Amino acid sequence: MKILGIDPGYAILGYGIVEMRESRFSLCDYGALTTAAGTALPDRLKSLYAALMEIIARHEPDAASVEELFFNSNAKTALLVGQARGAALLACVNSGLRIYEYTPLQIKQGLTGYGRADKTQMQAMVRTILHLDETPRPDDAADALAAAICHGHSAAYRARMEGFAK
Amino acid sequence: MKILGIDPGYAILGYGIVEMRESRFSLCDYGALTTAAGTALPDRLKSLYAALMEIIARHEPDAASVEELFFNSNAKTALLVGQARGAALLACVNSGLRIYEYTPLQIKQGLTGYGRADKTQMQAMVRTILHLDETPRPDDAADALAAAICHGHSAAYRARMEGFAK
Repeated sequence: MKILGIDPGYAILGYGIVEMRESRFSLCDYGALTTAAGTALPDRLKSLYAALMEIIARHEPDAASVEELFFNSNAKTALLVGQARGAALLACVNSGLRIYEYTPLQIKQGLTGYGRADKTQMQAMVRTILHLDETPRPDDAADALAAAICHGHSAAYRARMEGFAK
Repeated sequence: MKILGIDPGYAILGYGIVEMRESRFSLCDYGALTTAAGTALPDRLKSLYAALMEIIARHEPDAASVEELFFNSNAKTALLVGQARGAALLACVNSGLRIYEYTPLQIKQGLTGYGRADKTQMQAMVRTILHLDETPRPDDAADALAAAICHGHSAAYRARMEGFAK
């Protein structure tokens, strides 16, 4: 099973693709899509959407795992990031991908079994699980890989609970 | 010039298309796209995007006028509505439309010359400008028509300032 993880954002959107075979993960690709600050928002959304469509067509993942976002108070930021998250969801759903959404806490627990893990611990887990020598950069790409791994664990767990191996 | 106005929302998205010839407006179409509450967000975005793409292909507007949204405190709502607004902007930009954004205040001033106009006054102006017997329903569609008219006025004003008629 190939999983596309996405950490949504409008200035920088992290993505990562992992393959899971019998509970073992390997890295396919990762990176960050960036849009320039001076560009009009519709054009930034268009470029994020087009780039994600291209990544999905190239890697043909089986599912997408998209981080859920939370904002305590800054409604202006929430609105901006929401628009970018909408573009990312649309690229996935218009490509026929099933979409799974996980909160930051679920992703942390899915990787470390411990919801209070800090960023460094999370990155170390991503590195270990994917057998990498170095932590993927930027942070947004590492977060996207963590989301993808979280869904892999979750899908494997559900498959075991349903009584068949995957 | 044909203008598509959009009042973004995820449960209900208002749209309206007007034609402006020599500063006179006529109504082409209006309505509201709705998505069911129990549906997953990616599917709601997909359905809004697909419906808007179809409306744009059918009417071939020259420009889109999209209302800017403001939220004082509710970041959760802002995030949700932002995702729907992102889908609407993407449908416009992926259809090759130029997108113009106006704040609610700009739309009110563009229609009534008076930023403090209430909803009833706004709807009366939309009805008058478009030579309609009744106010377009629902409110979201009337708001979308107001956004379209606002851009028509703004474009005509800019054209006059640039020294040529439109």
